[in-house]
Amino acid sequence: MAARGVAASFSAGYCAFGDEQGAPGVAGEAYPTYSRADIKARCGGASTWVTYKDGVYDITEFINAHPGGAQKIKLAAGGSVEPFWRIYRQHLEQQAGVMDLLAPMRVGTLSAEDYASETCAAKTVDADDPYGDEPERHPALIVHGATPMNAESPPALLGDTYLTPNDLWYVRNHHPVPRLKGDAHEVALALASSPERGTSLAVGDLKSKFPRTEVTATMQCSGNRRGHMNQYGTTSGTAWGCGAASTATWAGVPLRDLVGETLNLGAAPLAAAKKLGLRHAIFEAADDMQASIPLEKALGELGDVLVAYEMNGAPIPRDHGGPLRVVVPGYAGVRNVKWVNRIVLSADTAVGAWERGMNYKAMPSHWRSKADLKGVDFAALPSIHELPTQCAFSAPAAGDAVDSDDESFEARGWALGSAGRAVHRVEVSADGGATWTEASLDAGTDQPYGRAWAWTTWSCDLPIPAGPEPLTLLARAADLGGGAMPRTPEDVWNIRGLNNNSWHTVTLGRTVSAEEEE
Amino acid sequence: MAARGVAASFSAGYCAFGDEQGAPGVAGEAYPTYSRADIKARCGGASTWVTYKDGVYDITEFINAHPGGAQKIKLAAGGSVEPFWRIYRQHLEQQAGVMDLLAPMRVGTLSAEDYASETCAAKTVDADDPYGDEPERHPALIVHGATPMNAESPPALLGDTYLTPNDLWYVRNHHPVPRLKGDAHEVALALASSPERGTSLAVGDLKSKFPRTEVTATMQCSGNRRGHMNQYGTTSGTAWGCGAASTATWAGVPLRDLVGETLNLGAAPLAAAKKLGLRHAIFEAADDMQASIPLEKALGELGDVLVAYEMNGAPIPRDHGGPLRVVVPGYAGVRNVKWVNRIVLSADTAVGAWERGMNYKAMPSHWRSKADLKGVDFAALPSIHELPTQCAFSAPAAGDAVDSDDESFEARGWALGSAGRAVHRVEVSADGGATWTEASLDAGTDQPYGRAWAWTTWSCDLPIPAGPEPLTLLARAADLGGGAMPRTPEDVWNIRGLNNNSWHTVTLGRTVSAEEEE
Repeated sequence: MAARGVAASFSAGYCAFGDEQGAPGVAGEAYPTYSRADIKARCGGASTWVTYKDGVYDITEFINAHPGGAQKIKLAAGGSVEPFWRIYRQHLEQQAGVMDLLAPMRVGTLSAEDYASETCAAKTVDADDPYGDEPERHPALIVHGATPMNAESPPALLGDTYLTPNDLWYVRNHHPVPRLKGDAHEVALALASSPERGTSLAVGDLKSKFPRTEVTATMQCSGNRRGHMNQYGTTSGTAWGCGAASTATWAGVPLRDLVGETLNLGAAPLAAAKKLGLRHAIFEAADDMQASIPLEKALGELGDVLVAYEMNGAPIPRDHGGPLRVVVPGYAGVRNVKWVNRIVLSADTAVGAWERGMNYKAMPSHWRSKADLKGVDFAALPSIHELPTQCAFSAPAAGDAVDSDDESFEARGWALGSAGRAVHRVEVSADGGATWTEASLDAGTDQPYGRAWAWTTWSCDLPIPAGPEPLTLLARAADLGGGAMPRTPEDVWNIRGLNNNSWHTVTLGRTVSAEEEE
Repeated sequence: MAARGVAASFSAGYCAFGDEQGAPGVAGEAYPTYSRADIKARCGGASTWVTYKDGVYDITEFINAHPGGAQKIKLAAGGSVEPFWRIYRQHLEQQAGVMDLLAPMRVGTLSAEDYASETCAAKTVDADDPYGDEPERHPALIVHGATPMNAESPPALLGDTYLTPNDLWYVRNHHPVPRLKGDAHEVALALASSPERGTSLAVGDLKSKFPRTEVTATMQCSGNRRGHMNQYGTTSGTAWGCGAASTATWAGVPLRDLVGETLNLGAAPLAAAKKLGLRHAIFEAADDMQASIPLEKALGELGDVLVAYEMNGAPIPRDHGGPLRVVVPGYAGVRNVKWVNRIVLSADTAVGAWERGMNYKAMPSHWRSKADLKGVDFAALPSIHELPTQCAFSAPAAGDAVDSDDESFEARGWALGSAGRAVHRVEVSADGGATWTEASLDAGTDQPYGRAWAWTTWSCDLPIPAGPEPLTLLARAADLGGGAMPRTPEDVWNIRGLNNNSWHTVTLGRTVSAEEEE
């Protein structure tokens, strides 16, 4: 099955549409005024309020009738629906029908002060605050830390479109987001062995002077699912759920072609560079971060490493490395350096914390505490590069419940092979592993051999086991390399919480129908 | 550390040296005569007898003084030591000293009839028996089935030399071993899309007309360690231990260069072949077996696929595909087709049982019985190609015992990454996983990035846990791809018993010292 695309990217901010007419309501009716804080306070428990423009709506009764599902509409609780409608564009394309549904639910008006402060015009940049010029972010992102921004994609939305809308992509920054010069931003290209061959190209040159090449790849923080590891033992780092992963179609220039042509390495740049004693490609970023990858990946004919200027058909947003980032399919997010301004082919790896420090080093499970790290030569440990086979649910999520009257329910998710290998099987259990159901593989199954850089989405109907107990859901995937994902976080645990690819586990409750309650 | 080589390969048969003078013994002594059956019957329990030439020796008292260890000398029990001395050549190089040790242990003379029948001259070929012309095999091989020959390497010897001596390589045949024409044997090369470009080359042409290229690779049957899987549930197929794996330095012509030159595919043969709509390289063998691999592996610049005529410095022995086989590093043994006589680049995979039948298909753990296979479309399941990360003990072995008086003992073994990834860590436990010791990585650590096709050997001293219980040894390895080997065979179990890469488990007894026994 072919990959399903997203219609477009969304560069607009998350402010309300301040320049349009007022929000729909019942004609002639006068509404009480609420602040944003009032509205947020009304949410939770049995009640859900949202806003559209300056209208306040009580959608409590509508939630279970929402064609997109209750889980998704609840993401807007207390806030504006508009950022979500930009993702789920059918709301805008069929606006008249949507408004007919919405208007009768109106219960109030957003205070003029809050409405104004939420418009773009109200935003000011504080020049003294290093984080004063951050991009606006979608309210559905799950923010783990804001300075620097570390936010994961809402897992429930990851399964909706094969390509993750740019606004919903996970964000993992190390510093404030640089503001660069768009097409005028320059990237230097150099050979450590022959400085005289160096050159520099603007993003505009990359667009106009080289053929545009597309690569569809899932990117994943090496700490994705660290939070699940913490259930076994405390790790250090952001406690990501399973949403530090997203997929895009990137466009740009293959690094192999770029250095082959501009640094006179010819049509077989890998062999040529290795003859010069070079072994790594170092990527330096405008935020002073740097990382490197081996030349076999950087310049190999099947590595598909891209110097990218486009993400899902739009210029790369600032949060995701715009105007220029490196895309290293199959490698940890940290090697996909954002805001790249220099690429050096070198005999050595990059320097600095991201390549040589402890943060991205592979450590064994038997190092259980910081005491075990005493005297460790971190430089001698390998850095995290390629990621292992992964599998995660997008729905249901922890805290959801199945209906006790139903015989089965739908589970959905994604899986990603290691080393570019295709995922050929996903197995899901609703009874803690006693029985397994093979999921249908939906999108992403037609990727080229050894270059399956993007996830495969899956879905299945799972029988609901008898009994009153909560359900223990498990999901595991197999790629073409054999082996198996580890059963529990214990088997892959490490003090830095990297590379958790244990079976994804979700516990579900059971709802009791009204009749039974009586 | 650099890979340690073996001195040479051994093409001699396993017959005794019938043309040399008699065996050493105590001068003037007359010895009783024993048949081979008599000698074998004397072995086991407390007593160990062996032969050298026509001499019979009781080495029972010497076993624990053997400089190479008791475990290895016991492999010769009941048989001749000569095949082992050809592997451990110090016995031949320092023969005078060895003989001084051996002569006083002489207890008899091998019957003239058995001595004669064990010499090469006595061997006749039965033309009516399809298995009448099989090569001679080393007596240390652990034979699971003789027609066709399926024999594993003695695990205790796998760790001794980095390269496995040809005589000790595991043998996995599907049919009688063909007898081909050496350098005159021809291999046809063809493009399914353009039959007119086909050509044919003799092995002699490969040697004389192309540069000789070496690749050091570990080969492994995809059923290696199937026997360990059976501890969890019965599988179908040969119950291999961990010895269906061996390592050689192969020499030959890279397939990429060979087809690039002879089939006019140029310097970028992968791209050229894909433009012709071709996707697989099919290897056809003289024994009517065939298998295929994707072109990305067959022709990729980092695939290292070799059309090989040499194994550890000698012409490839018949049992291992001589005079010509394909070597596909990192892929299941079955794709490394022996006795190859035709190579076709094709739009489709190979036909036949080895590529499309159920025997080499990846099946899920939840198919527990043959009933689950009913109605399965095996053609739709992927074939086993790349193998997962693997790790095994070479010593100690199940049934061995530690000395209760010792504080620690040495464990040794090998580990192999998946997808050409280097092994960067091996962890070993002597207490069932309660504590782990990191092993030293010995040989094989200097392989190129992404092309670590051969194993890494390891060793460590393990503390002996207190208590009278048997010791549960575990070994697990990590390669650069993150993730983890599965904990138990259950996690990777499948009805065909393929790709068992669960933690290797060995149970050890404890010996009680003589003093304690009193």
